[in-house]
Amino acid sequence: MKAHRTTIRVRYEETDRMGVVYYGNYFTWFEVARTEFFREKGLSYRQLEEKEGMALMVVAASCNYKSPATYDDLLAVETRIVETKNTSLVFAYEIYRDSSLIATGTTSHVFTDKKGKPLRIPQGVREALSVSV
Amino acid sequence: MKAHRTTIRVRYEETDRMGVVYYGNYFTWFEVARTEFFREKGLSYRQLEEKEGMALMVVAASCNYKSPATYDDLLAVETRIVETKNTSLVFAYEIYRDSSLIATGTTSHVFTDKKGKPLRIPQGVREALSVSV
Amino acid sequence: MKAHRTTIRVRYEETDRMGVVYYGNYFTWFEVARTEFFREKGLSYRQLEEKEGMALMVVAASCNYKSPATYDDLLAVETRIVETKNTSLVFAYEIYRDSSLIATGTTSHVFTDKKGKPLRIPQGVREALSVSV
Amino acid sequence: MKAHRTTIRVRYEETDRMGVVYYGNYFTWFEVARTEFFREKGLSYRQLEEKEGMALMVVAASCNYKSPATYDDLLAVETRIVETKNTSLVFAYEIYRDSSLIATGTTSHVFTDKKGKPLRIPQGVREALSVSV
Repeated sequence: MKAHRTTIRVRYEETDRMGVVYYGNYFTWFEVARTEFFREKGLSYRQLEEKEGMALMVVAASCNYKSPATYDDLLAVETRIVETKNTSLVFAYEIYRDSSLIATGTTSHVFTDKKGKPLRIPQGVREALSVSV
Repeated sequence: MKAHRTTIRVRYEETDRMGVVYYGNYFTWFEVARTEFFREKGLSYRQLEEKEGMALMVVAASCNYKSPATYDDLLAVETRIVETKNTSLVFAYEIYRDSSLIATGTTSHVFTDKKGKPLRIPQGVREALSVSV
Repeated sequence: MKAHRTTIRVRYEETDRMGVVYYGNYFTWFEVARTEFFREKGLSYRQLEEKEGMALMVVAASCNYKSPATYDDLLAVETRIVETKNTSLVFAYEIYRDSSLIATGTTSHVFTDKKGKPLRIPQGVREALSVSV
Repeated sequence: MKAHRTTIRVRYEETDRMGVVYYGNYFTWFEVARTEFFREKGLSYRQLEEKEGMALMVVAASCNYKSPATYDDLLAVETRIVETKNTSLVFAYEIYRDSSLIATGTTSHVFTDKKGKPLRIPQGVREALSVSV
């Protein structure tokens, strides 16, 4: 599957005293990329939460840092779904500065209702995300 | 009124590439200090929200920065209530490193119900906070 | 002077358990808007720091919150310089969701060298920012 | 090796609109725990950076979320070094609320000089950390 591509401009706030982006902030970029991934597929993650009462709870996250990003860098986050099960999804991310891959990561999620109870991923969501049904 | 004193150890995450604490993070410390201020008065801000369905919405905030804080500094935040009205409170903060005042600030709040509708500050809360009833 | 306009998409990370954006995060948006303000004027704040050894230290900041922002809102930050002195600048911000003004704020800055010593704002910077010389 | 134990009080800022702590913030707690781990061993990470010109660059990080943390929770982070090589260290973390394990994680680091060049971990640091020399 072709990856979805989101552009991120690094904020001053995201840097730390080492002069580069603080390692925890890459996970915020993964979240921004997920939101835009959903939007590109015609889904609004906000509406999934607000109208459908669903949530995409994070159960695991990882990042590998190859080269530091810094303030004002223009980055591209490429996002793919690499695994789908009945109630869960795994996203993989690649972060590029120009053509150079500077970080990779994954986040694993369970679809739940408002109370946190796992939910079979609805057919409409599967079709929109183009993952096997 | 004697100020409440909360200790903060500066986190690496709170610094930026200038080598000092990012200016927006002082407002997080004010929030930490408010929570501890409530606790010292015998109130739990968490329970006010969860059990009483009340919220302390921020309507204004300000900070004056005199000397930068940096990673691993041990700071003290002194918190006072400097104004009380029917539905609102103003907190003032002083941040010290050792005996040196490095920043001051204020936050103004309105007591509301869960839907954001202003609420008269309950008598029990006023008494606990030792503000005029 | 016509204001500079920057678009911000609210991140999930920026919200808190009240369901709206955490009050301290508006100051991050002011910083994003400043960076884009400089860029529109033909200046790179990153290069001012890295090549010229200058910094725009924050000495005061304030925000008034009129209506809460929440996840996935598309906001516009309007930025103006409202005061200029020899070594200092004051920015004013207005944040809009559609045509509705949801917050206003200011940040006051001193131009300094790398060691934090105040510096007369260079002529080239004044001209680019279109502030009186 | 007995784990080092650090206490964290969850901040309002760390929560998100789902009502629980945002997943990226666990990595900040890992960092706070590392700093205190060093301090307990008689080392100051701040001085390692400022006086020795060394840095502990993060090359990988991961977290598994078992049960959500929320505002005002009092958590304990247990920190261990689980792997040591010539120039690298791996930390493992367990986060507890009371006796319940709510998250686990790891961070992998390379010791570097100020320019990011890998550095053999100094003998004094190895001895203080009680890792094999």
